[in-house]
Amino acid sequence: MTYCLGVFLDDGLVMASDSRTNAGVDQIAKVRKMSIFEQPGQRIITILSAGNLGTTQAVITLLKENLNKPESGRDLFSAPTMFEVARMVGGQMRDVLKHDGDYVRMHGDPNATFLVGGQIQGESHRLFQIYSAGNFIEASSRSQLLQIGETKYGKPILDRAICDKTSLDTAAKLALLSYDATIRSNLSVEGPIDLLRYKKDSFSAENLSKYRRDDPYWVSLRDGYSDGLMSVIAALPNPPRAGGK
Amino acid sequence: MTYCLGVFLDDGLVMASDSRTNAGVDQIAKVRKMSIFEQPGQRIITILSAGNLGTTQAVITLLKENLNKPESGRDLFSAPTMFEVARMVGGQMRDVLKHDGDYVRMHGDPNATFLVGGQIQGESHRLFQIYSAGNFIEASSRSQLLQIGETKYGKPILDRAICDKTSLDTAAKLALLSYDATIRSNLSVEGPIDLLRYKKDSFSAENLSKYRRDDPYWVSLRDGYSDGLMSVIAALPNPPRAGGK
Repeated sequence: MTYCLGVFLDDGLVMASDSRTNAGVDQIAKVRKMSIFEQPGQRIITILSAGNLGTTQAVITLLKENLNKPESGRDLFSAPTMFEVARMVGGQMRDVLKHDGDYVRMHGDPNATFLVGGQIQGESHRLFQIYSAGNFIEASSRSQLLQIGETKYGKPILDRAICDKTSLDTAAKLALLSYDATIRSNLSVEGPIDLLRYKKDSFSAENLSKYRRDDPYWVSLRDGYSDGLMSVIAALPNPPRAGGK
Repeated sequence: MTYCLGVFLDDGLVMASDSRTNAGVDQIAKVRKMSIFEQPGQRIITILSAGNLGTTQAVITLLKENLNKPESGRDLFSAPTMFEVARMVGGQMRDVLKHDGDYVRMHGDPNATFLVGGQIQGESHRLFQIYSAGNFIEASSRSQLLQIGETKYGKPILDRAICDKTSLDTAAKLALLSYDATIRSNLSVEGPIDLLRYKKDSFSAENLSKYRRDDPYWVSLRDGYSDGLMSVIAALPNPPRAGGK
């Protein structure tokens, strides 16, 4: 499994991905699921991937090969808008599934999903979720969160705490807590976590961090959160006994 | 959907269930998913149900009809152990699926799952999860939580805070917070919540409460939790900027 998260904020985007890939429980590896395509000062495109690793790697490889080749129809560097970028990612996946899907289906699920976030000069930052069908939806100020993969364990803390006015740093902190909740409850998600804080109009991916499970900040964050949470719970009154007895 | 929870503690059991049943989004109703079979001072059996409502209602109805009929082979009041009770519930479900399964499958999933918790004089309290196949697993002091239905959203807070030494009242409080997390993130789970605190060796279901969403205690609990959680998060330091810049 996988857990990838995109948060759409007034101030920019927070994009995060875990690193576990597995086929069954005895074939486990680490892969990076975040790909960044950057033209400093001009455009930044971040793609997070979940699903069949053969499919997602083929899609990313072909998108890289098509960079600066506008005639391919899949050149992320010549797409005029992030909407066109999302279409290219969906189209590239459709090509890969057309090429491999029928062969893979006999052995397992060939499908994949992507989060695509970024900004191109001339428009604001945008965030999309690409479905296995190659179509997609876009995040908005009313719907800030997009998640793919093992999404449920880490959702409550985000639903409770994030809104469109949340700062990039606070959202990054919440993202790490969301990953901690997921990793505690589910074996198929694991660090290191790649975490990008993209400040709108910066056209830069320089605020990109990698968090291993033993990263001192992440350790202190989750310990502080656990301790604080336990204190909050302990301080809340117990449910009254039924019937008031 | 549904969310049912059983917690196995040194002090006894906490059993909880929501009340939403739906077929699609425009056919929504409330049902009670907790059934209690009680011989005061002798035995108490609590059954929580999830899955196809026709199946679960048929199973519970037939189990009720078979009470005090040992010749049925499904008399919960003559089962000598909770293990035998779990077998009877699984067996009753197999009968129902044999009777209806092939007809239902053309229209949808006929399967169901159950949590079965309680105590019979002569042994300690026990808790089981009955799978759709009619087989089952048992909770233990190392594995206190059993959940069925929409289980993931409400699991992180329990994983973080519950152990075998947790008191019944604290576990009941955590159960209500677990339901709150689930209801916030998922439309298919809704109150009222039926919540039983069973103290071991009491052979009594008297500490059984029902919590509507507007129950004053539950409102104050979730508001207090939200406020406390937001304070904890705000007090934790933000992730350092990448590269220490």
